[in-house]
Amino acid sequence: MLGLMQDWPLLVTRILDHAAQWHGDREIVSRSVEGPIHRTTYAELDRRARSIASAAGRELNIKRGDVIATMAWNGWRHLEVWYGLMGIGAVVHTLNPRLFADQLDYIVNHAGDQWIFTDLTFVPIFEKLQDRLAAVKGFVVMTDRAHMPAETKLRNPICYEDLIASGDTGFAWPQLDENEACGMCYTSGTTGNPKGVVYSHRSNVLHAMMAVAPDALALSSRDTVMPVVPMFHANSWSLAFSAPMVGAKLVMPGPKLDGQSLYELIDAEQVTMSAAVPTIWLMLLHHLEQNPHLKLPHLERVAIGGSACPEALMRAFVERYDTEVLHAWGMTESSPLGTFGARKGTLKHLAHEEWWRIKVKQGRPPFGVEMKITDDEGRALPHDGKAFGRLKIRGPAIAKSYFKDDGASSFDAEGWFDTGDVSTLDEHGYMAITDRSKDVIKSGGEWISSIELENAAIGCPGVAEAAAIGIAHPKWSERPLLVVVKKANAEVSREDVLAHLTGKVAKWWLPDDVVFVDEIPHTAAGKISKLTLRQMFKDFVFEAN
Amino acid sequence: MLGLMQDWPLLVTRILDHAAQWHGDREIVSRSVEGPIHRTTYAELDRRARSIASAAGRELNIKRGDVIATMAWNGWRHLEVWYGLMGIGAVVHTLNPRLFADQLDYIVNHAGDQWIFTDLTFVPIFEKLQDRLAAVKGFVVMTDRAHMPAETKLRNPICYEDLIASGDTGFAWPQLDENEACGMCYTSGTTGNPKGVVYSHRSNVLHAMMAVAPDALALSSRDTVMPVVPMFHANSWSLAFSAPMVGAKLVMPGPKLDGQSLYELIDAEQVTMSAAVPTIWLMLLHHLEQNPHLKLPHLERVAIGGSACPEALMRAFVERYDTEVLHAWGMTESSPLGTFGARKGTLKHLAHEEWWRIKVKQGRPPFGVEMKITDDEGRALPHDGKAFGRLKIRGPAIAKSYFKDDGASSFDAEGWFDTGDVSTLDEHGYMAITDRSKDVIKSGGEWISSIELENAAIGCPGVAEAAAIGIAHPKWSERPLLVVVKKANAEVSREDVLAHLTGKVAKWWLPDDVVFVDEIPHTAAGKISKLTLRQMFKDFVFEAN
Repeated sequence: MLGLMQDWPLLVTRILDHAAQWHGDREIVSRSVEGPIHRTTYAELDRRARSIASAAGRELNIKRGDVIATMAWNGWRHLEVWYGLMGIGAVVHTLNPRLFADQLDYIVNHAGDQWIFTDLTFVPIFEKLQDRLAAVKGFVVMTDRAHMPAETKLRNPICYEDLIASGDTGFAWPQLDENEACGMCYTSGTTGNPKGVVYSHRSNVLHAMMAVAPDALALSSRDTVMPVVPMFHANSWSLAFSAPMVGAKLVMPGPKLDGQSLYELIDAEQVTMSAAVPTIWLMLLHHLEQNPHLKLPHLERVAIGGSACPEALMRAFVERYDTEVLHAWGMTESSPLGTFGARKGTLKHLAHEEWWRIKVKQGRPPFGVEMKITDDEGRALPHDGKAFGRLKIRGPAIAKSYFKDDGASSFDAEGWFDTGDVSTLDEHGYMAITDRSKDVIKSGGEWISSIELENAAIGCPGVAEAAAIGIAHPKWSERPLLVVVKKANAEVSREDVLAHLTGKVAKWWLPDDVVFVDEIPHTAAGKISKLTLRQMFKDFVFEAN
Repeated sequence: MLGLMQDWPLLVTRILDHAAQWHGDREIVSRSVEGPIHRTTYAELDRRARSIASAAGRELNIKRGDVIATMAWNGWRHLEVWYGLMGIGAVVHTLNPRLFADQLDYIVNHAGDQWIFTDLTFVPIFEKLQDRLAAVKGFVVMTDRAHMPAETKLRNPICYEDLIASGDTGFAWPQLDENEACGMCYTSGTTGNPKGVVYSHRSNVLHAMMAVAPDALALSSRDTVMPVVPMFHANSWSLAFSAPMVGAKLVMPGPKLDGQSLYELIDAEQVTMSAAVPTIWLMLLHHLEQNPHLKLPHLERVAIGGSACPEALMRAFVERYDTEVLHAWGMTESSPLGTFGARKGTLKHLAHEEWWRIKVKQGRPPFGVEMKITDDEGRALPHDGKAFGRLKIRGPAIAKSYFKDDGASSFDAEGWFDTGDVSTLDEHGYMAITDRSKDVIKSGGEWISSIELENAAIGCPGVAEAAAIGIAHPKWSERPLLVVVKKANAEVSREDVLAHLTGKVAKWWLPDDVVFVDEIPHTAAGKISKLTLRQMFKDFVFEAN
């Protein structure tokens, strides 16, 4: 027996409809690539999204199911393209400008991008790269006629404002199925080629509904939301959908993500909520420290995720600026929000510092995210805060496969997606990432967390940076090697480091050797490149063996 | 092109799964029908829901698609039946004990209820009624063996605790389609027969997700939620779904809804949020006034809806008890939540009393509720706070038809449901109910609000109660007749009333006549029965005609 409720597909354009209809005068403030601050509203966003939708169909022959790339900062034109193209059933493939040219080339061709909408910033990149992007029909430069590059070598360059001017502000959205694709984002791919995640209208709408909840991002119409996290970084953690969903004011920082520029926007626009990775917040806090008269009176809370957040950073916001910190975890494959650090009712009684021991963890899943940790054989591990295993998730906003079926081994028969993270779950349900599964060191069937070893080693006097990797071992399968960079002019020996670690980690976790190097390799995102390190030490043999 | 996100049907049992898995130790506290306070948890609710599901299948032969009735107060056993039966694909039909026997009889037979789960309270009702409920196979009395009535005349009486004891706590839910029916609730039907609304798993899950948002009921894990609004009254305004969805503690008031009983629970269990109709809150406030030492230190907010809420009631909560009031509107056909009175960011600047003029309205729609007002020809009316028209809604948790296609005229070709309410929408999007469409008086193609006439007349000295109805008129189609009950011993004339109204309503709204009666007829719910009044005055002719 079927229910008798309305067939109302969950389409992302319904979010824009709602914002335009009920919050039409709410502002969207953007720092433009061209320089000035730009102001518009949800009503105007709706009209221009419809314009670009109709013009994209008529002038560029973009059709339902076509994959169209954007390489753009967070700004009003990116929102217009986003909603406009998704609204006609095209798939918006957000390109990350921080990718290496090789990866970009691979991704554009693999996705089958037909057109690329690009900010002025990235025109030089595509001028260099376009010969390797043979299937791309042309480039829409997201600026006005006055700012169009005079002599661009781009193939078929189109001025965005000219294009939109030819469109129809009253264009009616076609009726789409909620399971149709509307977005695509490639994982960074530290091993192997990047893999494409394909979001549906349904997954994006459900994910945004999850995100607005009080124990998630707690978004209301009274918020002024600044998504620093880019739209090309897993849907700006839903904010390009969830802020309009509730009628929050949006503040889009454009290309300037330094501390001073962000502070200026937070202050001038009275931002109440923002979201970014730790690096961004470190820059903002640094700017505030350099200018002790500056405060954050309007900023009620910040969401932090994307990589492990140092406790000192969290405490600086809370204790110095009275800004609440919400620790979150997620990934491209989970749209991305997977956990939130909101306090549970059953933990109300905890003393301040007791609560902080949980608050620094990555948080707990909301309704719509199923989560478990398992050993290598898929057996569920206990929620005791100690056992760590492969973190697996399931839900309506979590990938069931990658584009063209790449990386199928990440998905099991019961629909669980193996995140590649290794984590614990405590008795209250709070998850803490302990490692990446490919970095964990497997010694005699047991796991050693490379990150915990590194964190312990960092505390040793004279140690500037440390990285732990597994080295093949005839008896134990793998044993840990600790690679250390000394602080300038510091004296520290292998024995000093091992003595420091003793008592801080289990005895069998102690590295079999410590080697000193001048520099540890890093990825473009600033993380330690374990991949390169493993390459560097692939022939290493422990002396004692 | 389809998205590649997981197929994760929106089933109500997933809400319980989430609560049991991540908030398993969170309490459900109920005032039992038998007397004592009962305490359980979401983990135990999950086990017992699975038990009753397996036992219902095995012992009562209840199958997917079967319609099963409950007549029960808000309590833990009702939650078990609710989730257990919905989980196996049965349809839980909640019966309202306040219905007249005739309606109950009609509803049970129309719905095709196969079994009735009843609280002890209602056993006498069914003993009397059961001969007219031939298709009902039997009655499960929701109590334990010790409290089973010794000599009940009920057909096939089954003791609930015996039944559940035979079930399997580890029963696995079958895989259902999210569009399958899971709940049924009949509208009160002031005209014609009651009509059945059939909820789906999908509509209930989406509705609960809408309800938890900060601008809706703002539910978090830190809340202790007391649904006074019954589960048989349109899903307890989502709370039986939305509280477990976020891991809030639940406090279920059982059969005792008087001021003192509710106060005791609010105080003892530190309730932070509650929801009820105005009558309930008037009883609570009366109890507090009688006991001036009592305060509401934990109660952060109450949701009020179901009928127009007097401003004085709202102000008493806010100004005397520092408890925020959320005005809401909805109906059985909209699951029921349709609007919420949360303040918009663009209204932050309003002075206190300016905001109160908006706060007393019914509120604005959340994402997931489309709303418009139209004239009789379906033309949309402006959002100016003055024009009033038929209130129409659309959305994924709004009915597309009634059970067995009753009342098809309420639904138009574009999917809009005509609520039967008449309302205004102001420039900020806040809706205010001005009348029921069948009560509005249509004079020369224009509408006169019967409720506004009545409210104006009530202010006239000597008038105890007033009702306005339309009387057929050869020229104007209808003209208003005002029916008045005088206060005891008061002297008030037709001319006095008309003089009082002059200047308070538009001149063409002035009633063509005023008649005095000893009593105005009321419905079982205490509202003025316009239907009976129109019957009484069906042969009335204005003298001046």
